[in-house]
Amino acid sequence: MTQFLKVVSPKDAVAIVSDHLSKITSEFVSTESSLKRILYRDIVAEIQLPEFVRSSMDGFSVKASNTFGATEDLPAYLEVVGEIGMGHQPVPSISAGQAVTAYTGGMLADGADAVVMVEHTAMTNDGLLQIFRPVAEGENTIRPGEDFDLGDSAGEKGDVITTGTLGALLALGIDKVKVFKQLTVGVISSGDELVAPDATTEMGQTRDINVHTIAAQIQKLGMRYAKFPLIDDNIESLKFAGTEALGRCDALLFTSGSSLSNRDLTYQVIQSLGEPGVLAHGISLKPGKPTVLGVTSGKPVIGLPGNPVSALTVFDFVVDPILRHISGRKTVPALTATAILQNDLPSERGRTDFVRVSLQETENSLNAVPVWGKSNSISVFSETVGYVQIPSDQSGLYKGTSVKVRLDE
Amino acid sequence: MTQFLKVVSPKDAVAIVSDHLSKITSEFVSTESSLKRILYRDIVAEIQLPEFVRSSMDGFSVKASNTFGATEDLPAYLEVVGEIGMGHQPVPSISAGQAVTAYTGGMLADGADAVVMVEHTAMTNDGLLQIFRPVAEGENTIRPGEDFDLGDSAGEKGDVITTGTLGALLALGIDKVKVFKQLTVGVISSGDELVAPDATTEMGQTRDINVHTIAAQIQKLGMRYAKFPLIDDNIESLKFAGTEALGRCDALLFTSGSSLSNRDLTYQVIQSLGEPGVLAHGISLKPGKPTVLGVTSGKPVIGLPGNPVSALTVFDFVVDPILRHISGRKTVPALTATAILQNDLPSERGRTDFVRVSLQETENSLNAVPVWGKSNSISVFSETVGYVQIPSDQSGLYKGTSVKVRLDE
Repeated sequence: MTQFLKVVSPKDAVAIVSDHLSKITSEFVSTESSLKRILYRDIVAEIQLPEFVRSSMDGFSVKASNTFGATEDLPAYLEVVGEIGMGHQPVPSISAGQAVTAYTGGMLADGADAVVMVEHTAMTNDGLLQIFRPVAEGENTIRPGEDFDLGDSAGEKGDVITTGTLGALLALGIDKVKVFKQLTVGVISSGDELVAPDATTEMGQTRDINVHTIAAQIQKLGMRYAKFPLIDDNIESLKFAGTEALGRCDALLFTSGSSLSNRDLTYQVIQSLGEPGVLAHGISLKPGKPTVLGVTSGKPVIGLPGNPVSALTVFDFVVDPILRHISGRKTVPALTATAILQNDLPSERGRTDFVRVSLQETENSLNAVPVWGKSNSISVFSETVGYVQIPSDQSGLYKGTSVKVRLDE
Repeated sequence: MTQFLKVVSPKDAVAIVSDHLSKITSEFVSTESSLKRILYRDIVAEIQLPEFVRSSMDGFSVKASNTFGATEDLPAYLEVVGEIGMGHQPVPSISAGQAVTAYTGGMLADGADAVVMVEHTAMTNDGLLQIFRPVAEGENTIRPGEDFDLGDSAGEKGDVITTGTLGALLALGIDKVKVFKQLTVGVISSGDELVAPDATTEMGQTRDINVHTIAAQIQKLGMRYAKFPLIDDNIESLKFAGTEALGRCDALLFTSGSSLSNRDLTYQVIQSLGEPGVLAHGISLKPGKPTVLGVTSGKPVIGLPGNPVSALTVFDFVVDPILRHISGRKTVPALTATAILQNDLPSERGRTDFVRVSLQETENSLNAVPVWGKSNSISVFSETVGYVQIPSDQSGLYKGTSVKVRLDE
């Protein structure tokens, strides 16, 4: 039986557990394959980019002063004394009255300070370059440090590495990057009534889907999951599996049935795995109240509710922020859409409700349509795109209210 | 030299290429590991879910009529004749005046038609069950088919498999699912001035980042990439690598330098790889005009511009929709945020411009801040979160305009 029952708010649930945890350690990975990993330290440019003055156009590198006053009617005339192909090679010099062919992304001649676009030039029959428009000093060039100057930031500790970050790091010559290790999150599923999804069900049995939907959410967070074989509702089996899982995972989740006896069993197992054990039992959110929150040897150990939608809701609003906390990832606002609620949503003060909605775009507005008439079935999740939150200090939301929909990522 | 120059709009670019392509074939994968794959056919429920009447509460299964009129003062009295644990087992029957213990998610007794919550009951000293509130027929139960009824849709051809879809399929006993094969997209990088990011650069050389940023975008689309070794600007090497790549990829992208000669080379290579060859040369978008669009033996073959931001912009607005088209994925609206533009953005009619912006949230509004003063450097991409589009029928956008920002996914 439950020893005590301490119900906490979703926010406190995250805080209570997170306080006992330390962040994961670091490792070096190849920058090429670092997409979605998390930076372990700030990155600043230690070289300038570009490293040399570059032409931003195809044309001719010149001394800008040699083009001043040039017009269609009265062009400037220059002698082309060479060409700078792409890549590493000796660079020709120019004196007054000379030009050197330049290519986009390539170097300018020594002594040149601007580039004339090829479109604004012509060659005379005797091989002189005509220039029809003047260029200012620096025109059509990219100066060293224009992209990244020494000390410019290319990413901060806790940032998720995007395509842009990855490109910036490689451009700066950083081909290995220190990132937080990927978390491995274990999921143990138990239940006398559960069978694997590929088994034939007999009357009274249910296919075990939570272990797989929770694993999918872990995967979406960019973490690794470890699924353990389905076990019976037996405290010794659960303790054994839990100890085993904690040996190789950074966090552990239990999913089991929804009945009171399941909850008590999960409570006892988490309490038995190690100090400090259970920190809270029950969260004031709907769906998902029967959640057991614990910590063992610095790792979060959480018992999820058995109902598929409750389990996913608790994952998204409690487990997800706890896992992000130890993953090293900065807190960033979730993706939201603002929409008009299409039904009244009754609730109770003192409890945070999360209602799954679909979005319908009309000519004038975006509408949030709650799913009705189903008792938190998995179809509620598969037919919707996000959550509307009813804060704990409100007793519901009225139809027609403008609400923020937290979108599934 | 370029044989002809046919500049098309971004939309036409996608259409011209897509018309020559067929969708990818299918394969079966384990539903458990099908997250983000694309459904090859509509899925309808062939069983009911739940498959039996379930209790949605811990309590007692009863005949509802036996509880009518029950109050705190005048409870109904029933005899508890058994218990139904979880899982497969013989189910006891009840007659009038009897009840059987029921658990959340479990079965009801034969003859029972409702469940009384344990909170609304007590046991008398002589072992009789007292019931303090009446229940209606069906109360606290979930009827067969309430989650999924026969023929209900669990997903449509072209849908991306979400956590919800994955859960629904498994709950329906569908443990293998037919999905479109994952595309493999080849990326060939060439350029006399390019070196690998881990090499030491000499004056005039540039680190090759496009092959890696483009691969990252392919990865984000849920497709496989194949990076080929960096080669010199040589038509025979490029033809050889292109033929090799087409042998094992479903689409092929070339990235090379930005100069006119690079563009001509890419044009010639794509033209030489097979029929129909180049379909358009140049797209009326900025940045990214110098793009070569072609098809070889039913596979898209596209030459991207050399500038890092141009290459990514063309990928996002031209290559991405072409790859989605053959991947089988339904067209879904991109994620957008509505924000207030913080600067004038001049443009030219007849050309679609895409400007990278960062978002700043203030107390009253979300602001879109364009990146200025940099010539399409990679830092433009790493410091921003999305694009503002200036349509081709407008000559710019004014500061203060409400704009849709297409967010990076």
